[in-house]
Amino acid sequence: MTLDRNDPEGSIAEAAKAYSNWGRWGEDDVLGTLNFLDAAKRREGATLIRRGVSFSLAQRFDMDGPQKGWRRRTNPVHTMLDTGTDAALGNQGFPHGIGGADDVISMPLQCSTQWDGLGHIFDHGVAWNGRPAEKVVTSDGDLVTGIEHMAPYVAGRGVLLDVGRTIGTDGELPDGFAVTGEHLTATTTAQGVSVGRGDIVLVRTGQLARVRRNGWGDYAGGAAPGLSFTSAGWLHGTEMAAIATDTWGFEVRPNEFEHAFQPLHQVAIPHMGLLIGEMWDLEGLAKDCAADGVYEFWLTAAPLPITGAVGSPVNPIAVK
Amino acid sequence: MTLDRNDPEGSIAEAAKAYSNWGRWGEDDVLGTLNFLDAAKRREGATLIRRGVSFSLAQRFDMDGPQKGWRRRTNPVHTMLDTGTDAALGNQGFPHGIGGADDVISMPLQCSTQWDGLGHIFDHGVAWNGRPAEKVVTSDGDLVTGIEHMAPYVAGRGVLLDVGRTIGTDGELPDGFAVTGEHLTATTTAQGVSVGRGDIVLVRTGQLARVRRNGWGDYAGGAAPGLSFTSAGWLHGTEMAAIATDTWGFEVRPNEFEHAFQPLHQVAIPHMGLLIGEMWDLEGLAKDCAADGVYEFWLTAAPLPITGAVGSPVNPIAVK
Amino acid sequence: MTLDRNDPEGSIAEAAKAYSNWGRWGEDDVLGTLNFLDAAKRREGATLIRRGVSFSLAQRFDMDGPQKGWRRRTNPVHTMLDTGTDAALGNQGFPHGIGGADDVISMPLQCSTQWDGLGHIFDHGVAWNGRPAEKVVTSDGDLVTGIEHMAPYVAGRGVLLDVGRTIGTDGELPDGFAVTGEHLTATTTAQGVSVGRGDIVLVRTGQLARVRRNGWGDYAGGAAPGLSFTSAGWLHGTEMAAIATDTWGFEVRPNEFEHAFQPLHQVAIPHMGLLIGEMWDLEGLAKDCAADGVYEFWLTAAPLPITGAVGSPVNPIAVK
Amino acid sequence: MTLDRNDPEGSIAEAAKAYSNWGRWGEDDVLGTLNFLDAAKRREGATLIRRGVSFSLAQRFDMDGPQKGWRRRTNPVHTMLDTGTDAALGNQGFPHGIGGADDVISMPLQCSTQWDGLGHIFDHGVAWNGRPAEKVVTSDGDLVTGIEHMAPYVAGRGVLLDVGRTIGTDGELPDGFAVTGEHLTATTTAQGVSVGRGDIVLVRTGQLARVRRNGWGDYAGGAAPGLSFTSAGWLHGTEMAAIATDTWGFEVRPNEFEHAFQPLHQVAIPHMGLLIGEMWDLEGLAKDCAADGVYEFWLTAAPLPITGAVGSPVNPIAVK
Repeated sequence: MTLDRNDPEGSIAEAAKAYSNWGRWGEDDVLGTLNFLDAAKRREGATLIRRGVSFSLAQRFDMDGPQKGWRRRTNPVHTMLDTGTDAALGNQGFPHGIGGADDVISMPLQCSTQWDGLGHIFDHGVAWNGRPAEKVVTSDGDLVTGIEHMAPYVAGRGVLLDVGRTIGTDGELPDGFAVTGEHLTATTTAQGVSVGRGDIVLVRTGQLARVRRNGWGDYAGGAAPGLSFTSAGWLHGTEMAAIATDTWGFEVRPNEFEHAFQPLHQVAIPHMGLLIGEMWDLEGLAKDCAADGVYEFWLTAAPLPITGAVGSPVNPIAVK
Repeated sequence: MTLDRNDPEGSIAEAAKAYSNWGRWGEDDVLGTLNFLDAAKRREGATLIRRGVSFSLAQRFDMDGPQKGWRRRTNPVHTMLDTGTDAALGNQGFPHGIGGADDVISMPLQCSTQWDGLGHIFDHGVAWNGRPAEKVVTSDGDLVTGIEHMAPYVAGRGVLLDVGRTIGTDGELPDGFAVTGEHLTATTTAQGVSVGRGDIVLVRTGQLARVRRNGWGDYAGGAAPGLSFTSAGWLHGTEMAAIATDTWGFEVRPNEFEHAFQPLHQVAIPHMGLLIGEMWDLEGLAKDCAADGVYEFWLTAAPLPITGAVGSPVNPIAVK
Repeated sequence: MTLDRNDPEGSIAEAAKAYSNWGRWGEDDVLGTLNFLDAAKRREGATLIRRGVSFSLAQRFDMDGPQKGWRRRTNPVHTMLDTGTDAALGNQGFPHGIGGADDVISMPLQCSTQWDGLGHIFDHGVAWNGRPAEKVVTSDGDLVTGIEHMAPYVAGRGVLLDVGRTIGTDGELPDGFAVTGEHLTATTTAQGVSVGRGDIVLVRTGQLARVRRNGWGDYAGGAAPGLSFTSAGWLHGTEMAAIATDTWGFEVRPNEFEHAFQPLHQVAIPHMGLLIGEMWDLEGLAKDCAADGVYEFWLTAAPLPITGAVGSPVNPIAVK
Repeated sequence: MTLDRNDPEGSIAEAAKAYSNWGRWGEDDVLGTLNFLDAAKRREGATLIRRGVSFSLAQRFDMDGPQKGWRRRTNPVHTMLDTGTDAALGNQGFPHGIGGADDVISMPLQCSTQWDGLGHIFDHGVAWNGRPAEKVVTSDGDLVTGIEHMAPYVAGRGVLLDVGRTIGTDGELPDGFAVTGEHLTATTTAQGVSVGRGDIVLVRTGQLARVRRNGWGDYAGGAAPGLSFTSAGWLHGTEMAAIATDTWGFEVRPNEFEHAFQPLHQVAIPHMGLLIGEMWDLEGLAKDCAADGVYEFWLTAAPLPITGAVGSPVNPIAVK
């Protein structure tokens, strides 16, 4: 697939048509590509638990996160309802010496390590499976494809594609680097690992390692390595269940078309029904994979079943 | 262990001393009984993925939850930052037809299916491992044992003890029923399953099934079946990694002492360092276990790594 | 005006036409009837400050409020970012002995004593001054008539109409009592006070006094005394600037039509452009007015200029 | 009063003793200097309403505010529960054509134009009137001097001291400029206005005008003009009821002592019981005062009665 920088509308329409999964799982589908992740795939994934070591792929949720307020996306605000200081000073009114601490969080569901729900992106007012966006996501939330529907299913075989280490310099791709299908295939080959139907694929660019050294800068929305618009076909062809990156926005930034905004999302979510994760912390896992040469593992990445949510914070756990 | 209803202070002190794990994993420990869950246990757990079917053990997070405002614990409030209606009407200002929906949540971390962190409960101003509560949990959160430290580890062998089905009537224990060590042992025997070091134990009372039929009523803090104070020794002796129930408060309510408030918490969290889960939805899993007679499974229940949190919402995933 | 219980649509349409102020203050108007409150009216109001005593007409904002979750309207949740307990224990890291406390609030803007903004209610998709609702209030808030536009103006002559004391029994109207124009006129006559152009009119039903004795019950949306749909003409004819009541919903509940929902709002806000206040606490002021026979005063009731808000909490201050 | 840059502790202690109002209004006092604002002062203030023009002295509350996350102080997050787009599309389920919009806010109470409550600052663990801080402000809020107690009273005579126009260049004081008692007196003289018992004094530095031109920069906590520590005696001597500035932090920044943090707060709030306002927008009012030469007016600045709050957003209304 070639890319005409000056024809975003045409290119998006073409890709949308070529890679559409509308109707593939029936008219009532609310799961998209997560349908590919079946019991057999889970049995296969289970065999990848060999050493018993586990990795969290989540960034920490706190005020030191990358958000700067774009479209009211803030970092999480965590406050206490009760504290140990109050307990120690006997302020709490409980009997017999028991004391407690409680807390509250207020946060955008897309503020840190997350899944995008199927109601997160629309193409010309149309949501996943061809539904009118205004019938799917209202002020009451996603009435059809809310992320709660995915709650039980996101557990199976995970594959790390460490494109940063394979293609990049010193383990990192530069900002603006567009990861194509060819890069992805080259990485699977270099790593000796396959990607196929029902897999959960993790693409490491190395950008998170870089901003950890240098400060967040414009991590939230600025220049970044990421998936090329042209990778849509590769993504579709693998029949993967889900994909996640260590970047804010999954796809390369600036986007490859003139004046475009996240064109690969526009194809991948409403047309392919692809489950996309962002801001995952792949650093610890990637180091381990580089050390033992094993890039596949059992992965559980269960969204919180927030009714009607179009995204969810997640603490993905990989076990090797 | 016998229980003197009129001596809560003495009984709590005695149990605290008898079942303390202070120092067991060093002075700097931040994991408590989660230390029991090691790589070998994960390898054992992995063998339990046989059919490849997965279950979410989370209730839905929304305004229809059980909270009624006690100590400012409310149900989650989920609001939209962008919607499909706005996208459909072209209100969003994005180019080339892309539209989006975003959302925000505000919720107590203990509002629904959750883990209690080690900083959640104190005994006479003392937190887990003997630390002064006021040095551990301030207005800035849990500075020492924040739940983020547990992020990578809660994945291993899960065991369901369906006490409701084994001991109860029509699968449910009545409110106020105190589940003792004897009941728990009887359940393991009846189910033909063992509980031991490093396991994550799920105790189903059936109360959640009941309130689903009858309405929440006083589910949040009112009368409920649950663990007896006298079960502390059983819990300690098993060397389990964690335990969760389908009730609001883990232990039997009303509590077994006069004028007491959650005395088993007062022993289990600050003294044993036990990881406790509450408000889990065990209904679907329990039905499956009753059907195939297999009460053990792979379980991932990863808390969100909210820095300094004393609890976390969680979507636990069991795979059989 | 008579009221056909079985023709809500027709009655609303008729009243909307009869009492419309569309275009009265130009096509770009964002203030509605607040335009009636001019400098002369403020000079008149100033003369009513005679004794110098001031009254707050706000309920307290806390978890003990009336909200029960309808349409995600909750009571305010107030949490601390820093406390005196932490300061006293030296936990805060400030130099030379200074300590501090900070706090946060999360609340619906219509949770307690409030003004409804002009973007709060629509009639068949049309907002104040005939604008399409979808161009006025999106997920980004009220882009046209946000309550911030009213910020400087809500200060002038206030008049209390204590309908509860004048018409009711023991100072209170029963739930379901519809206050008509005739009742309002009878009250002005009994009190010896006039209502006219630019006034801010406060209607006391006494319901708040009742729920303070008996508990909130269904104060938030249930049966209540309030303005009759038939009072629309009276409201319009006075050319008042604003009106507020001591009830949840301004108009009588249940509403006077079959299966209707707040039909007077549907006329008063989008068609008349009337500024409406709800859940005001008129008890202290009313007692004072009953004692000295003076029912007019200086009133400041300044909404917080929350950009794009369709309502605002307010602490109205009356000075006599 | 001279200032020894190297003896903050001693200077603060000396000023605290010299300007203390502890006990002045009884042991149970919860109002501090607001006690100076009595009925006579309100009658005097009422005579200042001459033209009937009103001014809002509040900044707008939205994401474009100055906060950058220091101590979890964020800008307000305003989200919609219902919108006009949903109403227009018929998504809301209300009968007969009525539609509605509702909204929610989440914000620190000190995020924008505000009053500091008496529980906001402590000196060596001691709060206003000599109370132990840990008995006053716990995780449950300010149990003694919560800002709700001030709700009815903040209405009286306001005086603008436009120090920026009187002393500054082009109407503005530079960052780091310490406004002393002498500057304040010089301003009253130049303006021909008096400041005395019970007044609400507004000090304009011009910094807000500057950041409006240049961007917020470090408005929230960085260098700024403001009250000198040495002005404590002047503030105390006037017996003013309250004071507010157009800056983030009331006093000059950097503070005048080495390594100090807001030393004037440490004297003014816990010892004098002074009501302090910050981030007020005095620009419009100041322009009007410069034009007509009248620097006194009626001022209502009613905090929201949030139970237990240590601060409150406010929309102050001046009427001339």
